[in-house]
Amino acid sequence: MKLYTYFRSSAAYRVRIALNLKGLGYDAVPVHLLKDGGQQRQEEYRRINPSGLVPAFQDERITLTQSMAIVEYLDERFPAVPLMPQDAPGRARVRELAQIIACDIHPLNNLRVLRYLVHELKISEEQKNDWIRHWIREGLAGLESHLARDPAAGPFCHGSAPTIADCFLVPQVFNAQRFEIDISVYPNIARIYALCIDLPAFAAAHPSRQPDAE
Amino acid sequence: MKLYTYFRSSAAYRVRIALNLKGLGYDAVPVHLLKDGGQQRQEEYRRINPSGLVPAFQDERITLTQSMAIVEYLDERFPAVPLMPQDAPGRARVRELAQIIACDIHPLNNLRVLRYLVHELKISEEQKNDWIRHWIREGLAGLESHLARDPAAGPFCHGSAPTIADCFLVPQVFNAQRFEIDISVYPNIARIYALCIDLPAFAAAHPSRQPDAE
Repeated sequence: MKLYTYFRSSAAYRVRIALNLKGLGYDAVPVHLLKDGGQQRQEEYRRINPSGLVPAFQDERITLTQSMAIVEYLDERFPAVPLMPQDAPGRARVRELAQIIACDIHPLNNLRVLRYLVHELKISEEQKNDWIRHWIREGLAGLESHLARDPAAGPFCHGSAPTIADCFLVPQVFNAQRFEIDISVYPNIARIYALCIDLPAFAAAHPSRQPDAE
Repeated sequence: MKLYTYFRSSAAYRVRIALNLKGLGYDAVPVHLLKDGGQQRQEEYRRINPSGLVPAFQDERITLTQSMAIVEYLDERFPAVPLMPQDAPGRARVRELAQIIACDIHPLNNLRVLRYLVHELKISEEQKNDWIRHWIREGLAGLESHLARDPAAGPFCHGSAPTIADCFLVPQVFNAQRFEIDISVYPNIARIYALCIDLPAFAAAHPSRQPDAE
């Protein structure tokens, strides 16, 4: 199995956590998002992912992009350490939590979006940081309320073992901290993050531990 | 079953298509995104969805937000007319296509984002339209390449019956057309859209056919 990854990519980080939680070995193929005008946008990588985004995953059956699709595929193909609940409402809830991050927060702070804001719309560094923080705060506040009201939230986002939702939460909080957002105002998020971050599968997926880390 | 919906919301439109494809009746509860400073942001609606976004879905078991999570839940709960393939790579591929729309295109052109661009970053009407078109074109180009290279693409996004991917494609193309984007440059997308748009389940979900349409 191959994972096209960039150490700091939040979406690649999610997939690395899932692979580690399942104890699956893989070849990490680094794609540098800043070098050569962005290796992810070049012809060679677009043969893997025509959308020109990281991550991409390959096994002998499929070439797959989109972190959520990859993680659910891994969970179906390697069910031994399940990352999804056994019941339909539980699965729905885990997908909902992951999608709050994957649809409501992360797409707005992606590198290509920040580039457009700076180069096309000529916003200042301060405006850029305000933009990033605004969408992270807005999204985390929603996520926190979802976690706070749900009796199914346990030590992890859903129950007593990590699920896909935790694979998504940790990289987003890591990202928030890079932008100096105070996570303690989101007590459930802060608690789950603190629990996950030191677990071996999460720790080994951390950007600083990747072969392409700078 | 209740669907909190707004006629023009792309994410609500996806869920309406899925409900119709499955032949499921539901109560449509309109949430007006522009009236009263946005009914979706008010206390009353936030009790349903703390994130303050449309759609939200309720049955006797769950209150659920995020269109992708809702549609997969419907598919699991009412398997009679499946909207997902039977095989894991097929399911992965359908999720990937839906997520190209749900993660790479739609979040950038959401009402709240356009509002921020106009009110906080003071961009002009022309800049706003350029922004919208840029992300739609970028996303649809990626989606088109994915469809073009995949032998599993049939008359629909995946095979010979509608899947979740088609539920996502149609509202996004509808949206692109509102911004006068020429869809014919994406031949697979144009072909699938043309096939779907007149099918009864898709037609009945169209924004113009909703009780809250203006």
